[in-house]
Amino acid sequence: MAKLFECIPNFSEGRDSDKIEKIVEPFHKDGEVKLLDYSADKDHNRLVVTLLGGYDGLKYSVIEAMDIAIELIDMNKHKGEHPRMGAVDVVPFTPVKNVEMKDAVKLANEVAEKAAAKFNLPIYLYEEAAKTVKRKNLADIRRGEYEGFKDKIKKEKWKPDYGPTKLHKTAGATVIGARMPLVAFNINLATSDIQTANKIAKKIRNSNGGLRYVKAIGVSLKEKDIVQVSINMTDYTQTSLYQSFEMVKFEAKRYGVNISGSEIIGLLPAKALFDSAEYYLRLKDFKEEQVMENRLLEDL
Amino acid sequence: MAKLFECIPNFSEGRDSDKIEKIVEPFHKDGEVKLLDYSADKDHNRLVVTLLGGYDGLKYSVIEAMDIAIELIDMNKHKGEHPRMGAVDVVPFTPVKNVEMKDAVKLANEVAEKAAAKFNLPIYLYEEAAKTVKRKNLADIRRGEYEGFKDKIKKEKWKPDYGPTKLHKTAGATVIGARMPLVAFNINLATSDIQTANKIAKKIRNSNGGLRYVKAIGVSLKEKDIVQVSINMTDYTQTSLYQSFEMVKFEAKRYGVNISGSEIIGLLPAKALFDSAEYYLRLKDFKEEQVMENRLLEDL
Repeated sequence: MAKLFECIPNFSEGRDSDKIEKIVEPFHKDGEVKLLDYSADKDHNRLVVTLLGGYDGLKYSVIEAMDIAIELIDMNKHKGEHPRMGAVDVVPFTPVKNVEMKDAVKLANEVAEKAAAKFNLPIYLYEEAAKTVKRKNLADIRRGEYEGFKDKIKKEKWKPDYGPTKLHKTAGATVIGARMPLVAFNINLATSDIQTANKIAKKIRNSNGGLRYVKAIGVSLKEKDIVQVSINMTDYTQTSLYQSFEMVKFEAKRYGVNISGSEIIGLLPAKALFDSAEYYLRLKDFKEEQVMENRLLEDL
Repeated sequence: MAKLFECIPNFSEGRDSDKIEKIVEPFHKDGEVKLLDYSADKDHNRLVVTLLGGYDGLKYSVIEAMDIAIELIDMNKHKGEHPRMGAVDVVPFTPVKNVEMKDAVKLANEVAEKAAAKFNLPIYLYEEAAKTVKRKNLADIRRGEYEGFKDKIKKEKWKPDYGPTKLHKTAGATVIGARMPLVAFNINLATSDIQTANKIAKKIRNSNGGLRYVKAIGVSLKEKDIVQVSINMTDYTQTSLYQSFEMVKFEAKRYGVNISGSEIIGLLPAKALFDSAEYYLRLKDFKEEQVMENRLLEDL
């Protein structure tokens, strides 16, 4: 059975296309990983790479790309709108297929340990890989950014999880972790009343008593003259897409509003859709091996 | 984009495991095709192989396996309960991913042409690859079987599509063709009344005015004390699973009967399930490339 992770490393270089191409070079190698996407933003001065691969393929190619990025990027000269604390700013691993969160946590730890030793780089673990609750949230770790970290790193409570208690002199520090893949699922309402979307978003999201793995806000789509409940499914294996959909439907009913459609933004694992097909078709004992394409992924 | 076909060659050897292993040998080669399954039935004296692969991988490995089967099987000594007319009895190709029926027809023709020349073997084309309506149905072509074909092949209307107008002296003749993959979809009813299942099956199937690509019968599940509408979806790209499901639901309503569940038997393409998820979640502009796993299949 193919064991697959997604990895979305973020590098602090979004302007120099020569450097960008050099950083992604290790991800072009056949058989190691699949480079799904990479996009550089000049204002953010940041490169975001999306990879899919197995345990070893990701481990080796990510460390190789880190090596190149650390060589090429000098954080003392880096300016950009996006918060950052290192040349390799953040590296999340997410379980996609036939692997569990604990495997992603193990992978994050292995990469962090090797990279810290190889590059003499301070590394923090976040989200599911965090060793303490206070380090779960990336924003908390990164607060102060590269410039502020020269002092922050000396504080006992901000001692890195791996590597020296001292910023790398050009590459700063890196945050590595494990989290579930996000599924961006937006549901359109046949109304232009933003209050309705806001009220529904509030009822379905975890923070206000709704579904455990749902974040949601109301959004106006001016061009279409409708509103949308914009949802981030933070763990589609626990809270299903159909649960969000049915919940929006029954909340909308109380305002006499219909759902006019929905959309998935970006990527999602096949299982997130199979799960909803199974629910609505009332499938029993369905196994993912019954899907032809899954059989082809077995050997990867 | 990966172009994928399924191929289910049937060979007239179901008893001698040495011979069976030799016939499937070409399907074990890395990178050519993926051998999903093979099963031999002693009573039928028949080997059924399920393969997934690209155009060239299937073409070469199927011809290689035909070569071995023709070498090993003598139809003059073959006895079995299943109708058959050749050592390589029937070879259907079905489009699975990023290919159309016309590609499967082309593949069937290319294999038929090459195999006819290489083995001096008479070959008939059936289903979507058939050159005339009278050769669409496999049962019509195969009627008379190996023994009867010695005369049948001499008739003008049964002249082979490729190869000599004379049976191969040990391998008989072969039928090659193209068809859609079947999806076996059974819907259970919360009743033990077989009449209800039969009446619903009749309303939903093509032959009695129902859905174009649906074959259906009522079946009693004695052990569970319920009945089932047993459905063959003959083209899931045209008639969707959710259409069958919703139609059974509204027909069942008139008898006051509920659906208690459903099941998929065997394999199905991912698209058959995505399609139903899209319908029920009201997804707009969904693209298969948004499914992570599909990106991995691109290079195959």
